[in-house]
Amino acid sequence: MNIDGATRLYAIVGDPVAQVRSPSVYTERFASAGINAVMIPAQVQTEGFTATMQGLMALGNLDGLLVTSPHKNAALALTQRVSARAQSVGAVNALRRERDGSWTGDMFDGVGFMSAALSLGPVHGARALLFGCGGAGAAIAVELAAHGARSIALIDPDISRAEQLGVSLGQHFPGCATVASRDHGRYDIVINASVVGMNDSEDLPGDPGPLDSKSIVGDVVLRPSERPTALIRKALSAGARTVTGQHMHAGQADAIMGFFHGPNVGTAASHT
Amino acid sequence: MNIDGATRLYAIVGDPVAQVRSPSVYTERFASAGINAVMIPAQVQTEGFTATMQGLMALGNLDGLLVTSPHKNAALALTQRVSARAQSVGAVNALRRERDGSWTGDMFDGVGFMSAALSLGPVHGARALLFGCGGAGAAIAVELAAHGARSIALIDPDISRAEQLGVSLGQHFPGCATVASRDHGRYDIVINASVVGMNDSEDLPGDPGPLDSKSIVGDVVLRPSERPTALIRKALSAGARTVTGQHMHAGQADAIMGFFHGPNVGTAASHT
Repeated sequence: MNIDGATRLYAIVGDPVAQVRSPSVYTERFASAGINAVMIPAQVQTEGFTATMQGLMALGNLDGLLVTSPHKNAALALTQRVSARAQSVGAVNALRRERDGSWTGDMFDGVGFMSAALSLGPVHGARALLFGCGGAGAAIAVELAAHGARSIALIDPDISRAEQLGVSLGQHFPGCATVASRDHGRYDIVINASVVGMNDSEDLPGDPGPLDSKSIVGDVVLRPSERPTALIRKALSAGARTVTGQHMHAGQADAIMGFFHGPNVGTAASHT
Repeated sequence: MNIDGATRLYAIVGDPVAQVRSPSVYTERFASAGINAVMIPAQVQTEGFTATMQGLMALGNLDGLLVTSPHKNAALALTQRVSARAQSVGAVNALRRERDGSWTGDMFDGVGFMSAALSLGPVHGARALLFGCGGAGAAIAVELAAHGARSIALIDPDISRAEQLGVSLGQHFPGCATVASRDHGRYDIVINASVVGMNDSEDLPGDPGPLDSKSIVGDVVLRPSERPTALIRKALSAGARTVTGQHMHAGQADAIMGFFHGPNVGTAASHT
């Protein structure tokens, strides 16, 4: 890639940012799409967050933002318009500047999983089991509920966090039953949205219950495809359909490119 | 070049910025020096300048700034420390973050000319003729005075601008005589710091007077080396020593790389 005076800017905002992959992923996607733009890392502290962001967003050649930890919730207040799912999650991870100068926010953390899951089997009417009720888990739970999942069992070592997510989902999606515990029956969809499996850990986030060829099993943990997580390996050995962290990241990047540049580029998110 | 989460940021701040060359020039220099950094264009409006800059300068991974039109004067107030020459010019075009988080400013617009001129002949005691008393002209005049030029004839279509520059120089450099007009004698150093010669114009900025092999003639106008400005061509045909816009830009970039990264990288400015 080249950078010149006419290069448009996108920034991924977080603290820390040294570990983020988005600058290389999106800069390469912009180049492939023939767009003169780069994704820069922007380390923004929580102290002074709003003032720093207002300065960054005042740059005339900055067209969009990604937001990562710990700012996804706070970034909601920077938008003039958000998608229903972002409202439900209470957080945004992508913002774009509209022609009138206002900012639209959306939340894509659950989109990569959902677009893959929808291609693998029915989500409407499914019984889902979700491990991990932090930001990624909340985004995936909202996608499941928005796509008609019948119920979601919400599992987190911090039970109050699971219960709070259940309350929030109940407000936005009264047709989706949530419970902060699990039974020992079969779940149609099992997702790990916790950190279990990171750093090459071979632990399972919990017992996924009976799995078969109709099960859909997802794991947000990012691993090289030749070394899947223990959960994905268990799913594969049961003949289940799987969605890896790699799939989710690629699907999310497709959707975000569409959000940034419209349906001509990448695959636009469908239900904002 | 590649960009990743650990890439350090430098920004060139101006309005407009689409035409600036610094993003490609410095990004390439960073890459050549093995530094994981990019120079991004940052379009900052005059309205809200201070707040926008404070936001930009709050980014934890932004290490330095270049400043171009129309913000060079206003940027002085963003620094906690400036060089004597920046103070004399009343403007900065480069800022760097120090380890303690404070910002140091400097003015390099005259440095490229001066480092080339010093290699071509004596500046101390010289009679100089300067066409153009805007920002670049003021920076070059300060360099001439700081290096002991005996006198500077300041020529500008706006005579009050020339006179004001003379007053300012007189305050900082009482040993250097200035006059907002010229005689018909020989000048040791002749510089064009006006826009005359841009857009392939074949005009001279004014009569350079008698030129010979000891004359030093500079022109800030940037041209491909095979198509020098009319002033440079006139100097070459008289056997004079010349400093082109290309020389000045390269010399300035060397000095700014040294300012950003210390004497290990590029050639540091010597008299800040």
